[in-house]
Amino acid sequence: MFEVRERDGLGRIGLLTTAHGKLTTPALLPVVNPNRLTVSPAELHDRFGFAGVITNSYIIKKHARLRERALADGVHGLLEYPGIVMTDSGTFQSYVYGKEGVEPQEILEFQAAIGTDIATLLDVFSTPDRTEEEARADVIETHNRAKAAGAWLRHQKHLRQIEEVQQRLETPGSRGLPLLASTVQGSIYPSLRNQAANGLSRLTADIHPIGGVVPLMEPYRYGELADMIIAAKKGLTPSRPVHLFGCGHPLFLPVATLLGCDLFDSASYAKYAAQDRLLFAEGTRHLKDLETLPCSCPVCSSTDVEYLKSLPREERQVKLAEHNLWVLAAEMRKLHQAINEGWLWELVERRLRAHPALLPVFKVLSRHQKWLAHYEPVTRSRSWQPTGRASVNRAGVLATRRRLKPMLKGRRKLFDHAVLGPVPLTLCESHPCQQSPEIPEPEQPLAPPWNVYRARSIALYQFGSQATRGLFGGGVELVCSKKTGRLRNVVSTDGEHRLSLRAADGLYTLKLAGAKRILKAVRPPSLRVVIDPDAVPYAANGKSVFARFVVGCDPELRPRDECLVVGPDDRLVAVGRCLLNPQEMRAFDTGVAVKVREGARDLPLPEQG
Amino acid sequence: MFEVRERDGLGRIGLLTTAHGKLTTPALLPVVNPNRLTVSPAELHDRFGFAGVITNSYIIKKHARLRERALADGVHGLLEYPGIVMTDSGTFQSYVYGKEGVEPQEILEFQAAIGTDIATLLDVFSTPDRTEEEARADVIETHNRAKAAGAWLRHQKHLRQIEEVQQRLETPGSRGLPLLASTVQGSIYPSLRNQAANGLSRLTADIHPIGGVVPLMEPYRYGELADMIIAAKKGLTPSRPVHLFGCGHPLFLPVATLLGCDLFDSASYAKYAAQDRLLFAEGTRHLKDLETLPCSCPVCSSTDVEYLKSLPREERQVKLAEHNLWVLAAEMRKLHQAINEGWLWELVERRLRAHPALLPVFKVLSRHQKWLAHYEPVTRSRSWQPTGRASVNRAGVLATRRRLKPMLKGRRKLFDHAVLGPVPLTLCESHPCQQSPEIPEPEQPLAPPWNVYRARSIALYQFGSQATRGLFGGGVELVCSKKTGRLRNVVSTDGEHRLSLRAADGLYTLKLAGAKRILKAVRPPSLRVVIDPDAVPYAANGKSVFARFVVGCDPELRPRDECLVVGPDDRLVAVGRCLLNPQEMRAFDTGVAVKVREGARDLPLPEQG
Repeated sequence: MFEVRERDGLGRIGLLTTAHGKLTTPALLPVVNPNRLTVSPAELHDRFGFAGVITNSYIIKKHARLRERALADGVHGLLEYPGIVMTDSGTFQSYVYGKEGVEPQEILEFQAAIGTDIATLLDVFSTPDRTEEEARADVIETHNRAKAAGAWLRHQKHLRQIEEVQQRLETPGSRGLPLLASTVQGSIYPSLRNQAANGLSRLTADIHPIGGVVPLMEPYRYGELADMIIAAKKGLTPSRPVHLFGCGHPLFLPVATLLGCDLFDSASYAKYAAQDRLLFAEGTRHLKDLETLPCSCPVCSSTDVEYLKSLPREERQVKLAEHNLWVLAAEMRKLHQAINEGWLWELVERRLRAHPALLPVFKVLSRHQKWLAHYEPVTRSRSWQPTGRASVNRAGVLATRRRLKPMLKGRRKLFDHAVLGPVPLTLCESHPCQQSPEIPEPEQPLAPPWNVYRARSIALYQFGSQATRGLFGGGVELVCSKKTGRLRNVVSTDGEHRLSLRAADGLYTLKLAGAKRILKAVRPPSLRVVIDPDAVPYAANGKSVFARFVVGCDPELRPRDECLVVGPDDRLVAVGRCLLNPQEMRAFDTGVAVKVREGARDLPLPEQG
Repeated sequence: MFEVRERDGLGRIGLLTTAHGKLTTPALLPVVNPNRLTVSPAELHDRFGFAGVITNSYIIKKHARLRERALADGVHGLLEYPGIVMTDSGTFQSYVYGKEGVEPQEILEFQAAIGTDIATLLDVFSTPDRTEEEARADVIETHNRAKAAGAWLRHQKHLRQIEEVQQRLETPGSRGLPLLASTVQGSIYPSLRNQAANGLSRLTADIHPIGGVVPLMEPYRYGELADMIIAAKKGLTPSRPVHLFGCGHPLFLPVATLLGCDLFDSASYAKYAAQDRLLFAEGTRHLKDLETLPCSCPVCSSTDVEYLKSLPREERQVKLAEHNLWVLAAEMRKLHQAINEGWLWELVERRLRAHPALLPVFKVLSRHQKWLAHYEPVTRSRSWQPTGRASVNRAGVLATRRRLKPMLKGRRKLFDHAVLGPVPLTLCESHPCQQSPEIPEPEQPLAPPWNVYRARSIALYQFGSQATRGLFGGGVELVCSKKTGRLRNVVSTDGEHRLSLRAADGLYTLKLAGAKRILKAVRPPSLRVVIDPDAVPYAANGKSVFARFVVGCDPELRPRDECLVVGPDDRLVAVGRCLLNPQEMRAFDTGVAVKVREGARDLPLPEQG
């Protein structure tokens, strides 16, 4: 089960439920080589705070000592790791060493037998030098294996359920079945990646890694890598987390997260350390080239660079691995903070300038701006800040400009926002423009008509012209703060509360009375989320709408848009705020689609009527 | 005494000699308030690695308890700080509280009496809202006070020398006289800042702070701040370190360093901590807004954000101050690394995107490109990397393009460098283009004529067309590596070694034989550094040329340029590499101007002849 809690761009803070607890994404899983521990898994968990690790079931299976211990004590026992363990299947080994030493079914069963939390399909690693024909064959073979793996796991689940019913008890301590990670291949062909993703999304699976990309990362082919991620994401269901295999460099983590990758793994911390190299958010550096330690981590803050250089090889390697882990852990926390507060785009734009090989990603982002825009939340807790000229190609700009466009005609009072271009002055306190330094100082104290203009203008921007006519029809009063004179509410002359202006982002919260006016003024499907009749009584009583009860919706809605919740007969059931976009509402089986604010309890409902 | 060891842009790694040892710059001096220690000065030194601090002599003088102790044990004893102590004079207090509680001479003598390492003039704080007239009066008053202070210190020095001679002993433990910091004021008027700087440069002083800028930093008026720094730097002698008063935010430190500020002070670590705010390289954040700690410092790596929020106020304040100090210390190390390796411009370009208020600095840098270019080293240890479109306005670009321009006419084999634009393909292995991804793959193995073109082309770029004609005249042979076929040396047919190609940056080292050819081919002052006759025998014997012996030079030379060292009669004395640019050669009294590689020992010298 995967639930989205917060979002920015396609990036999301999610909760992935596993047999060993919930993993908060985006998450980086350090790679643990059971044959060679640079840092112990227990330390990874307790000291560095990594809630999950990834290890290789193929290596465990091949070494008798590891295999026996893993089968007896489970992979968690083998690693002495209390968190979540994902296992890889040997696909990458078959790519590196050119042979497959194991059968897909065999390694899947082995992963289940050692009690991994996330098992990975033995897929066919499709390198960038494959022809399209060859790559297609790889994708088909991978799909067939994924189908078989999904079927086997479904069957196992079924068997366990029967067993549990027969024994009339939950068998405590018995290992749960793992989640299944079915990998998207397709080499460097976007259409193949897309088809592969589409196919896998229909199968039983819990996670979709994007595989075969290490040969793009090693030579810093970041533009192509971004293209492949987008191609895969366009085909994948948004309801399952995506793992970007082999990505553990802070250079690429922010943009991968922005593009909707949720899980990462990193052998880099140990591999780079073994080569005397240090990871930094702005690139990799060899220890010998450093004359200072340009980093604030516990290693770099307490050690001198010359002392580090003088350490014996093994001791040095541990220190460098620790540095790399501190940097990666902080980077993941930064990504969480950016998503929570809505500055992931800014972080990505800055990071794309850290290495020239990342600059081509700007073009990729701008080429897919339209698709990306569907996932852009309508509001964030921070207003937009430009990081340079490239900011005008941010996905949200396109979506916002589209809503602004009808408002600009013939309007004189505009200001020039650094990211958005011309914006009506009446929106100067509304997201994404609030607090922009380009807003001119008012020439005189704001006169009462200002609030009238502003009240309508914000509604036009949020709901469009027809809805605004409805909202302001039949006589309305503007309720302003007595203290500050600021607009607070829009109320009809007979006392109905239609709109409430949020101080935080200068946008409206739609009230039930307002929703009723919109329902009359605007034809379906505009501004509506249509729900299953079964869900109507719950929503009407103020309960939020789960994604699986959504049967249709306005395709223009975006996350955090205000919306009307209606039944299939277009009767108003509730008013609330979208947490998902239309694609996601269709795709998710679990989680909330619309956070209902007010249910229309007073409406005659089919169940109550 | 101030010596420059490494450089990039106007940034420099310098060594400032004080009574308590040498301070390596750029250096940040944490502000220590002796009445209120958040972190003890001893810890600042031992744990956080700050080699110097700044404290306020005015506050010490005002409080009897502090004053008595400081007079008895010295300011180092009062603070229990083993490193370098700078003292401020109360100027800022007079600005904040609107009154001057002390006389300039009085506070200067007090600073000397408590044994400070760097004493600061009581100057007149000129706020941005002063009219030009008012600001001019402030500048004049400051200048007069600086003159008096310098005279007094000169006199004191003289007295001590007499005393030492009389006592025929060095008085061990007696306090040395402090260095004097004379501050540049001038409000927001560039011409005033420039005049003030010019005036102070002629007086006795060791350090020049740029003052009165806190009112520009607080409202993030970074564009104007950069303008003021440049105006001051243009007037200041490059031979003295510059202190940017009140600058302790990692947002602005990189660009201030690039513009030639060497010293900084920071009360920010404690002030922000007292307000529950954390410093980051990308801005300031309030603790309450954080859901994770997006940082790798020892505090953030070992603490949970919720735990931090739950701490009692005082304990929390210490933790946050520690975080701020770790971040600042790492930032300073990063600046050192960037200067050492020559990527300070890249770091600055990236950081200017961290906050919209920094974006205007791009325009300031590009407006002063021509002046900045004089300080740009001709080669660095890394090739140039673009960080985006703004990189084409980097100061070095202008200087490099000027040298490339005559080489582009009619040439067909060019490639398009991301930062420089069109560059002859023959320079594809020379700084700043080496390793650029834009260099096309050669169509066929490099044929022998390639080296012939390349050999001339690099000489044209480094020395110009006339010098190249000289260098390649009279028959030359190219010596190539037998193993790789790569060009190594240019030798005349009769065996004179004229040029040696460096593998590291693909540029020539000029040999004595080559220098002789240039001497004949190119008229003075081109490519020459003219030295005092007294220094001739030293240089002729291979000793480096100290700045104070330089009597003239080619105004087009830049740091790290190859040059001929000649006597006033234009006789060749040696060949070497400039460490300073012409302005600096004129300004410095100490330190090396030209690192001599070969002296012309075989030449008849006045002293030997």
